[in-house]
Amino acid sequence: MAASSTSEGLFHEVAASYETPHAKITVVGVGQVGMACAYSILLQNVASEICLVDVVKDKLQGEMMDLQHGLAFTRHCVIKADTDYAITADSKICVVTAGARQREGESRLSLVERNVEIFRGIIPNLIKHSPNTLLLIVANPVDIMTYVSWKLSGLPQERVFGSGTNLDSARFRFIMSQRLNIAPTSCHGWIIGEHGDSSVAVWSGVNVAGVTLTDVNPDIGSDNDKEKWTEVHRQVIDSAYEVIKLKGYTSWAIGMSVATIVQSIMRNSRNVYALSVNVKGLHDIDGDVYLSLPAVLGEKGITHIVKQLLTPAEKEKLEKSVKQLSDLQKSLKL
Amino acid sequence: MAASSTSEGLFHEVAASYETPHAKITVVGVGQVGMACAYSILLQNVASEICLVDVVKDKLQGEMMDLQHGLAFTRHCVIKADTDYAITADSKICVVTAGARQREGESRLSLVERNVEIFRGIIPNLIKHSPNTLLLIVANPVDIMTYVSWKLSGLPQERVFGSGTNLDSARFRFIMSQRLNIAPTSCHGWIIGEHGDSSVAVWSGVNVAGVTLTDVNPDIGSDNDKEKWTEVHRQVIDSAYEVIKLKGYTSWAIGMSVATIVQSIMRNSRNVYALSVNVKGLHDIDGDVYLSLPAVLGEKGITHIVKQLLTPAEKEKLEKSVKQLSDLQKSLKL
Amino acid sequence: MAASSTSEGLFHEVAASYETPHAKITVVGVGQVGMACAYSILLQNVASEICLVDVVKDKLQGEMMDLQHGLAFTRHCVIKADTDYAITADSKICVVTAGARQREGESRLSLVERNVEIFRGIIPNLIKHSPNTLLLIVANPVDIMTYVSWKLSGLPQERVFGSGTNLDSARFRFIMSQRLNIAPTSCHGWIIGEHGDSSVAVWSGVNVAGVTLTDVNPDIGSDNDKEKWTEVHRQVIDSAYEVIKLKGYTSWAIGMSVATIVQSIMRNSRNVYALSVNVKGLHDIDGDVYLSLPAVLGEKGITHIVKQLLTPAEKEKLEKSVKQLSDLQKSLKL
Amino acid sequence: MAASSTSEGLFHEVAASYETPHAKITVVGVGQVGMACAYSILLQNVASEICLVDVVKDKLQGEMMDLQHGLAFTRHCVIKADTDYAITADSKICVVTAGARQREGESRLSLVERNVEIFRGIIPNLIKHSPNTLLLIVANPVDIMTYVSWKLSGLPQERVFGSGTNLDSARFRFIMSQRLNIAPTSCHGWIIGEHGDSSVAVWSGVNVAGVTLTDVNPDIGSDNDKEKWTEVHRQVIDSAYEVIKLKGYTSWAIGMSVATIVQSIMRNSRNVYALSVNVKGLHDIDGDVYLSLPAVLGEKGITHIVKQLLTPAEKEKLEKSVKQLSDLQKSLKL
Repeated sequence: MAASSTSEGLFHEVAASYETPHAKITVVGVGQVGMACAYSILLQNVASEICLVDVVKDKLQGEMMDLQHGLAFTRHCVIKADTDYAITADSKICVVTAGARQREGESRLSLVERNVEIFRGIIPNLIKHSPNTLLLIVANPVDIMTYVSWKLSGLPQERVFGSGTNLDSARFRFIMSQRLNIAPTSCHGWIIGEHGDSSVAVWSGVNVAGVTLTDVNPDIGSDNDKEKWTEVHRQVIDSAYEVIKLKGYTSWAIGMSVATIVQSIMRNSRNVYALSVNVKGLHDIDGDVYLSLPAVLGEKGITHIVKQLLTPAEKEKLEKSVKQLSDLQKSLKL
Repeated sequence: MAASSTSEGLFHEVAASYETPHAKITVVGVGQVGMACAYSILLQNVASEICLVDVVKDKLQGEMMDLQHGLAFTRHCVIKADTDYAITADSKICVVTAGARQREGESRLSLVERNVEIFRGIIPNLIKHSPNTLLLIVANPVDIMTYVSWKLSGLPQERVFGSGTNLDSARFRFIMSQRLNIAPTSCHGWIIGEHGDSSVAVWSGVNVAGVTLTDVNPDIGSDNDKEKWTEVHRQVIDSAYEVIKLKGYTSWAIGMSVATIVQSIMRNSRNVYALSVNVKGLHDIDGDVYLSLPAVLGEKGITHIVKQLLTPAEKEKLEKSVKQLSDLQKSLKL
Repeated sequence: MAASSTSEGLFHEVAASYETPHAKITVVGVGQVGMACAYSILLQNVASEICLVDVVKDKLQGEMMDLQHGLAFTRHCVIKADTDYAITADSKICVVTAGARQREGESRLSLVERNVEIFRGIIPNLIKHSPNTLLLIVANPVDIMTYVSWKLSGLPQERVFGSGTNLDSARFRFIMSQRLNIAPTSCHGWIIGEHGDSSVAVWSGVNVAGVTLTDVNPDIGSDNDKEKWTEVHRQVIDSAYEVIKLKGYTSWAIGMSVATIVQSIMRNSRNVYALSVNVKGLHDIDGDVYLSLPAVLGEKGITHIVKQLLTPAEKEKLEKSVKQLSDLQKSLKL
Repeated sequence: MAASSTSEGLFHEVAASYETPHAKITVVGVGQVGMACAYSILLQNVASEICLVDVVKDKLQGEMMDLQHGLAFTRHCVIKADTDYAITADSKICVVTAGARQREGESRLSLVERNVEIFRGIIPNLIKHSPNTLLLIVANPVDIMTYVSWKLSGLPQERVFGSGTNLDSARFRFIMSQRLNIAPTSCHGWIIGEHGDSSVAVWSGVNVAGVTLTDVNPDIGSDNDKEKWTEVHRQVIDSAYEVIKLKGYTSWAIGMSVATIVQSIMRNSRNVYALSVNVKGLHDIDGDVYLSLPAVLGEKGITHIVKQLLTPAEKEKLEKSVKQLSDLQKSLKL
């Protein structure tokens, strides 16, 4: 309690006030993605404290103040921001959105290498102040950066995971809902694998009320399909590019995806999400590679991965991503 | 993960699943009040685990199942119930609603003595399994039972408090809102003191948008008032009796009051509520007596009490309650 | 605005205040089920007005006051209660929970006949004051009472439906979640048909992340299944009886089920729920019978029913229910 | 329902699906402020439909898609975007955030004149498609633009209002909460008058639990105050500039302020907010000028304005704003 005569005149002190970080979330990177995550987490009432970290002090301060000015309209939450990771101490989850943007003509390897350098300044600092934290990686390319974070952190694999294709799956469900004219939340489908161009739509699991669409339209997902449902997956892949082309970046949907994942962890809800996880041992994959598969998420991280029954074509696509990512991993000095 | 071939076929285990009681609430007593509290807490999404304890095993089991059957409609929460306090281990808050009902012609002292016996079976058991818990007492007569709980628990005073006149204040604000035809949440007023007949309406603080009603109607709260605003306070006092007469008990509003208090603690929000607290040292009161005053509530309990500026008449009423409660306390063997 | 000098001193009137029933819900019957529905709807913030109707004036008044006293803790909602249906005018949805309880040794027909008499006093009154309302029937036996309500109301079939097996499905998902140790909201399964003993579990649609459990355990749902998953369905059927035996009635889960359905309608969300609908024309059923099937629900009621692919055994069970219900319908004078 | 064989195979049509704009909100302007408003409204679950309108087609399309891609994570909402106002038909509320930014060295009059031209292209189009809408003006300078909107719309004054000092009041409450170390929602204080530099802090109404701070510290708000509480108001005024300097614009807090106002209207909650309203007849003000005062807000707009008891100094400040705004108004051709 600030010592002032007004405080003293107003309050009789019974005991000291505390602030323990029992539901503390750190967001690293206060660009459009990071702030959409922070704002969604604030509005979903899942955190008792949100810490923002970045390298640009002014922007940090401005975003912190802007969130704080809205606190009279929400349930309580402490908002902090600093370039110093000390404020992040004892975070339950650290959401990492920071990262370089691809330069024109830059190779993927070069981009990743630059991001690795950035992550060298982030991940060890997070672990230092929150040795028991979970790491939720959002920065792109998300699969490789999740792998990098796992390596840099020294954490067990279950505590490091990426937002992966949870958003791709949500986009799939929305576009599917437009086709069927029912709620996205009643449309079920899973996009797995590498986040982005080479993601895999698991058509065998696409269903409404338990009715698998392959049972209604056996050609679904194939080139023979007269209704061209593959277009739905195509739109999912294109939509990230399209949104970026149209508005310059994506933010709102990834913010909602991350808030949903964070809420699930804070409640130990054990929901299944398509997250970027270490897929070693699944689908005959041998080697530590991060890709999205449906995973059970609890308060201590990933506990189980759902073993989907993939077609040979789906497995082949996964393997191709594994191969590319493995090669990329080998080029990195970690 | 339950060992079964379906589980094994469905899931690849990455790590063991955990269940830590990080946002665990215990409700003792599964009567109408206790269950309205539990249901409100569940629907408000503030707990990761709710434990129900009572002495009637069947009822307990039935209430637990009934809440569990709704979990597909909410955010996640673990629901447990048992007559054994072991399930309550490491609760953040224990809400105590259990207690005897007044028999016809029974003196208040006799009722309290019977409740003391019941609490002897409850409070030490709660503390044994959750030594760091907060105790939120709801059972009536709430002020004396909060005092009793404090004594039986051996906890510091800031960690034992009663739901007190938080509900009376809400009733006041609702009835005031009916008079003024604006939202209850825009009507501000505080009922303090003993929960029930001898509560005190602090007219000096009744305001809308910071406009104190005494400035608009100087007679407000007095017998000279032509608009008879004292009727609003009278209705507050009568309404508990009236609801009990009409439906047999009160439940919904106290459930919402308790859920609000619990949410505030879980978020460490430091909101001010009219709670039954140890008022020693306030308003010239000397002695450990529990009565409701506006109190600042954080994750570790009460940290400050607001020093309201009471009129001599208001202070006199408080003192009368203090005297009665002190006498009653002396009669108890604790 | 109440005419009083305080009001006049406090407020400058700009325009008259209005109260249009734009999100108005009526709940008929204020027993444990009706009140759990009303309370859930209030806490879910989906209604701007809730009207309670019953024949017992005192109870009505008490429940209304008890809800009102909590309004300082919620978003705004108008709460009304009366034995006169005039207050229900222009409701968007009328939830009917009123009904007789089965007497010992009473035949089902006799119970239904008594309930038909009760509904004769309810349904036409609701339609009279809210000709555009939807009717959501909760009273048991829910399928036949939904049929009765459709007949008595004269409404098109899409505007009359029953809470049906939405709750049975939720129970199934909870018990399934216990077996698999994941969140109920990540367990998918549909219980259809007659609410109660003769409900049908559609095993072909039971899935986690799109992985159908029949693909993992081909014997699931059959007598050959070593893991005895049919027990899950058995427990669903038993659980209503068990909860009633243990606590005397069911309330919380049905309250949450109804609030979810109501919210979906108010948002025109077009979600799919297992609701009691007129199944004529589905699954080779000929005749106007109400049973639960997955149905698309919008602001104007049911728009589509999902055509599940049922096994011969599942269809046979449905047909048996159809036969029994048809016979019962024929015995009724409507 | 889209005509396709999969749809036909999946669904049995019972009735046509509808989409009535019963809880429809339009947001004009998809800059940082407009999108923070839209996102907050979406996350608060208060609308069944959100329409975005702007002149830049690409940006519009991108923002719409980005919101839509998150719909699998929320309760249902229809999201539309177009440059054509036809999509806004039958909106309940139109939130206007569009407007020009002040050029360096540009006079206030010149800025307003440019904004008037922009509003000539917005307001009549909104009214044309939604003759019964409310207009919530957020664009700056908000007071004069609300006046302009009132004039251009031809609507009665109660249906046109500005976000005004609702945000300034929230900032005041947050900074006050930092000083007193209690929740912002338990700190009460009102900033009124012109949004921005010349706003007025009404010290007589600043209170905690009904205890007016002037009773604890009689010098509060004056130059004699040793604790310099006027600094709190100074920080409120500075904070908009500071946030803009630090991050380039303000967005999150105004988004939360607008979502709160919108929710209140949709629920007809009759809460009191500091909104920019026609103050003619209040505080001896003669003439149609828009400034913020505490106002009662219902589903049809402003119904009452709270008559605060202002000190001569406070009234003088208000009058100064009135004078300046009146002069500005006279310079405008409307």
